[in-house]
Amino acid sequence: MLRVIRVNMADLKATVEEAPAELTRLGGRALVSHVIYSEIPPTSHPLGKKNKLIVAPGLLAGSTAPNSGRLSIGAKSPLTGGTKEANVGGTAAQQLGRLGLKALIVEGKPANSGIYVIKVKKNGVDIIAAPELTGLGTYDTTARLRGAHGDEVSILCIGPAGEMRMTAASIASTDPQGRPSRHAARGGLGAVMGAKGVKAIVIDAAGAKAPEARDKQAFQAVSKAFIQEIMEQKATTLFSQFGTVGGLSYLSKIGALPTRNFSAGSFEGNSKIGGKSVAELNAARGGSFGHVCMPGCVVRCSNIMHDKNGKFLTAGFEYESSAMLGANLGLDDLDTVMGLEKMCDDLGLDTMELGAAIGVAQEAGLYAFGDGARVLDLMLEIAQGTVLGRVLGQGAEVTARVFGISRVPTVKGQAVPAHDPRKEIGTGIGYATNPQGADHTGVIIFEGEDTAEMVAKSRQKQLTTAAYDSVGLCQMTDPSLEVMAKLLNSFCGWNWTAEDVAEMGRATLTKELTFNRNAGLGLATDRLPEFFEEEALSPHGGTFKVPVDKFEEVLKF
Amino acid sequence: MLRVIRVNMADLKATVEEAPAELTRLGGRALVSHVIYSEIPPTSHPLGKKNKLIVAPGLLAGSTAPNSGRLSIGAKSPLTGGTKEANVGGTAAQQLGRLGLKALIVEGKPANSGIYVIKVKKNGVDIIAAPELTGLGTYDTTARLRGAHGDEVSILCIGPAGEMRMTAASIASTDPQGRPSRHAARGGLGAVMGAKGVKAIVIDAAGAKAPEARDKQAFQAVSKAFIQEIMEQKATTLFSQFGTVGGLSYLSKIGALPTRNFSAGSFEGNSKIGGKSVAELNAARGGSFGHVCMPGCVVRCSNIMHDKNGKFLTAGFEYESSAMLGANLGLDDLDTVMGLEKMCDDLGLDTMELGAAIGVAQEAGLYAFGDGARVLDLMLEIAQGTVLGRVLGQGAEVTARVFGISRVPTVKGQAVPAHDPRKEIGTGIGYATNPQGADHTGVIIFEGEDTAEMVAKSRQKQLTTAAYDSVGLCQMTDPSLEVMAKLLNSFCGWNWTAEDVAEMGRATLTKELTFNRNAGLGLATDRLPEFFEEEALSPHGGTFKVPVDKFEEVLKF
Repeated sequence: MLRVIRVNMADLKATVEEAPAELTRLGGRALVSHVIYSEIPPTSHPLGKKNKLIVAPGLLAGSTAPNSGRLSIGAKSPLTGGTKEANVGGTAAQQLGRLGLKALIVEGKPANSGIYVIKVKKNGVDIIAAPELTGLGTYDTTARLRGAHGDEVSILCIGPAGEMRMTAASIASTDPQGRPSRHAARGGLGAVMGAKGVKAIVIDAAGAKAPEARDKQAFQAVSKAFIQEIMEQKATTLFSQFGTVGGLSYLSKIGALPTRNFSAGSFEGNSKIGGKSVAELNAARGGSFGHVCMPGCVVRCSNIMHDKNGKFLTAGFEYESSAMLGANLGLDDLDTVMGLEKMCDDLGLDTMELGAAIGVAQEAGLYAFGDGARVLDLMLEIAQGTVLGRVLGQGAEVTARVFGISRVPTVKGQAVPAHDPRKEIGTGIGYATNPQGADHTGVIIFEGEDTAEMVAKSRQKQLTTAAYDSVGLCQMTDPSLEVMAKLLNSFCGWNWTAEDVAEMGRATLTKELTFNRNAGLGLATDRLPEFFEEEALSPHGGTFKVPVDKFEEVLKF
Repeated sequence: MLRVIRVNMADLKATVEEAPAELTRLGGRALVSHVIYSEIPPTSHPLGKKNKLIVAPGLLAGSTAPNSGRLSIGAKSPLTGGTKEANVGGTAAQQLGRLGLKALIVEGKPANSGIYVIKVKKNGVDIIAAPELTGLGTYDTTARLRGAHGDEVSILCIGPAGEMRMTAASIASTDPQGRPSRHAARGGLGAVMGAKGVKAIVIDAAGAKAPEARDKQAFQAVSKAFIQEIMEQKATTLFSQFGTVGGLSYLSKIGALPTRNFSAGSFEGNSKIGGKSVAELNAARGGSFGHVCMPGCVVRCSNIMHDKNGKFLTAGFEYESSAMLGANLGLDDLDTVMGLEKMCDDLGLDTMELGAAIGVAQEAGLYAFGDGARVLDLMLEIAQGTVLGRVLGQGAEVTARVFGISRVPTVKGQAVPAHDPRKEIGTGIGYATNPQGADHTGVIIFEGEDTAEMVAKSRQKQLTTAAYDSVGLCQMTDPSLEVMAKLLNSFCGWNWTAEDVAEMGRATLTKELTFNRNAGLGLATDRLPEFFEEEALSPHGGTFKVPVDKFEEVLKF
C-alpha cells in the first residue's frame, strides 16, 4: 500500500499514513489537483497557512518505464490565484516511487521565521532547522545538502527568490549529477515553499527497493514497444542532437518567436541564440547534448553548457529560456543569455516569467532591448531583494501594474511563454483556457487556423497532457492514451481502457477549473490580453481572432 | 434636452450630442454604471484605450434641492478590475447641471504622452495642451487653472499620482473656494484619467442658466420639507459641529476603529486625533467647522484646518482620513496626520488606500507604527515616483504582493476603510458584496449581529445608496425613497413612485455586478480577507463569522 506524508510546519511534525482510498488511483498532476480542489479553501491567501504544497510523483514512479520520472508539484498559485501544477524532471520522483510514496503534503506555516529542510527517507521524515542555508542560491544549497546527506539524494529546493516569496519563484529539482537545473518553474510555487519556511526537501531512497510491476512480462513488453515508438518520432532525434533550443530558429522563421516584448515574431539574431550556435559552442568548449534529466530517459533533450573557460555553466538550457531571455529582450549574445538562465536557476526563478517581466520593464524605461549589461544589473537587483528587484521578481503582471503599463503579456497573471498566439492559434486557445494560466506545456499546437479544429485539438491536447502529467511520463514522449493504459495495467495491476485514462485527464481538468471558479477566477479570466487581437505581428501580420465564446467550449466535457 | 459630451483623446476631438433615449432617466451613478456596463469591453485593460472615464452629475444637478450637487465619476477600475463609481462633492456637478449636461465621457488615449486640459463651457468644449501642468500637485494645478480661466470655474484634476498611473490615485474636485479638497478617491480613477493624458477638466457655466423645476411650487415645498427633515437628524448637528472626524472616538470606544494595520479596534490615542482635539485646534488656530463642500449643503460637515502658524492647511479633514492615516498607522499627532492628509490631497491619492498600504508596509519592515517622520519619507517616495513610492501608490494589495505578505486588508483589491467588520457585521457584509469593492459609503451599518437582519439591511442600504448616488444627493442627508421620488417628479416632471426609485437602485447594482462578472470577477471575489475570520479583535474579541453563502443573497433582487 502506498503512503502519504503530511508535514505540518506549524508544529514541525510529520505523519505518515496509508494513502486513503480516494487517492489510490491518482498520481502526479491528478493527485495534486485533487488535493488542491478538496483540501485548500479556494479563497485563502496563497502565502497563508491554509495553502498546501503538494509533491506527487506520477503513477509509474520508480518503475523502469521510459521517461516515467516526472514529478508534479502544486498549490494554490500566488501568481494566478488559481490552481497550479508545475511539472518537473530530475531524480526526485523515482526516489519517491522507490520509497512507496504517493505524495508529500506540506501544510501550515512556522510561527517563527525559521528555515527548514524536510528529509524524507525509508524510515520516516526529519524536519531539520537549517538557518545556515538562508539566502543561498540553489547551487550552493544543493552542494551543501549533498555534503550533509550524500550524493545519492534527490533535492527539491528554493533559492533567494522563493525565500523572498517572489511570485516568479520556482522550485529546483536536481538532475542525476545533483545539479539544481530542472525547475518546477511556473506559478510561483517557490514562494509557497518559502512562505512555509521550507528551504529544501531531501529525498533519500537508500535501502528502499524499487517497486515491481504486477505483470513484469507484460510491462517489459509494453515498455519496449513504447521506447521503439519514442525513438521513431522525428522530434526525438532533433532533441537529442540540439536540445529543445534546436527549435528556436524554426519558430523565428514561422514568426512565432516572442521578440522584444512580443512586438515581433521573428528575431534577426535567432541563429546566434538557437540550436546551431549552441552546438558550435559545445563543440568548441566541451559542453554536450543528449544529457538526461532523469534516469530512464530515452529522449535526452537536456544539454550541458560550458562557459568561455570550458567549465560547466548550466544544464538544461531550453528553448523557452533562450527565447524569453534572449529574443524577447532583444539579446543575441549567447553567453549573456546562458548567464541569465544560470542566474535564474540559481536564484530559483522562472525564466519565462522573468523574460516577460523585463520585457515589460522596457516599456517602463527601465531597460533598452539588447542591453545585456543592464539586464544583468536588474538580475542583481532581484538577488539583492531591492524594491525594484522584488517588483520584477513578482513577474510581468505586477511589473506592469507598478509602472502603469497596459500592454501586459499575461493570462491569469502568468506570463505568456515563447509561442506567440498570433501565429499559433491553437496555442492561443490553450493559453486562454488552460486552468494553469498561459503555460508552455500541454497547449502548444504549431499549425492550423480553423477555429473548430483548433478548439477540438486544444481540448484533446489538454486532456492528454493532464493524463500523462498524472502517469508521470515526460511530454517529450507524446504517449497515446492506449500506451498509458497498457503501462498502468501491467505496472499497477489495473484493468483500464484508453477511455479510463482520458477520464482521468478530464476529471483532473474539471477539478482544476472548478477550483479556479471557487477561487474567484470567473469565466472571463479565460482570455488573452487584448493586444494580441489588436497588434498585427510581423513578419506575417497575424492577429488572434478566435471569438471568445469559443473558449467556453474547450474544456466542456 | 440634456446633452452628452464625448471627448476622444486619440484624435483630440469632442462631440456634443443630445442624450440618447436610454440615458434620459439616468444620472450620476446610474448613468456611470450604465455606460461602463454597455460601452466598456469588460476584459479590456483599465489603462488601455478602450476604457472610458465617465463624469456624470446627479439627476437633480443644478437645482436648488439641498445637498444635490454630488458628482459621479466612473470607469473600469485599475484597482479592482471591476466597475467603479466614485462619488464626490465640490461645485462641479452644479455647473454641469447648469450647462445642461448629462455626462462627459472621455475615451481613447493620446498617441503621444501629452498632457491636456478639457474645458467644458456653454458653447462647446476645448481640448488644450497643458505641458506646463506636468507633475504639479492638485493645489498648484487648480491655482494656475483658476488664474487662466477665472475663479468661478469648477475643476476636476489629478496630481502626480494619477499622472504616474498609480492605482491609489484619486481625482480632486474643487470646493466653493476653489480648493481641490474633495476627492473621487476610490478605485484608482486618477490613474485612468492619467492614462488618458487628461490633467484637468475645467467646467465653466458662465452664461448658462440654472435649470428650472417643472413644478416650481411643488419642488420648493418638497425641498423645504426635506431640509427640515435633514436638520432634525442627530448626525447633522454632530457633523456641523465636529465634521465626520467627530465620530472617531466613538468608533474607538466600540472597537471598530482600524488600529495599527487592523490589529486592534481601539486606539489609545483616539482623543488626540478625534473631533474634540480637532475642535480645540481650530479654536486655537482659527480654523473652522460648518464649511460646505458644495453650494446648497445644509449639513455642513466639512472643516477648514489651519497649521501651527494659523494658515490654511487642509479642508475636509474627514473621519476616514484621520482613522486610516492616524490610528491605522499608530499615529496620534494631529499635525502629522493632517499633514499626511494634505499631502494625499495634493498628490491626488486616496487617503484610505494609502493608510492601508503603509499599514501593510509595516509588516514588511518598512515602517514602525507611530513613526511620523518615516511615514512622511514614504510619502516623499510616492511624490518622487521612486520604485518604492510607486509600489505604495498602487495600494495595499500590490504592496503586500511585492513584499510577500499574506495578511491583506482588501476586498477585490481595494483597501478596507475605517470600519472594522469584526465589530460592524453588517458593514462587513457590504464590504464583501458591494460591486465597488470594500467601500466606505453605502455599506456602513453600525449595529446588529443577526445574519438575516444584516443581509436584509445591507441590501436595503446598498440599494438606497445606489439611488441617491444617482439622484445626486449627499449620503449625509440620508434621503428616503419617497423624498427622492417627490424631488424627481417635481424637478423633472416625472411620475415616479418610491418603488421606481428603488428600481433605479436595483438596476444600477445589477449592472455593476454583471459588469464585474463579465470582467472575470467571479462569485468568490465577494469575500472578506480570511484574517477577519481568524483574528479576534481587541478589545471585544469579535471575529467575522457570517457564512459566505449568505453573501450571495445580498444583491439578489
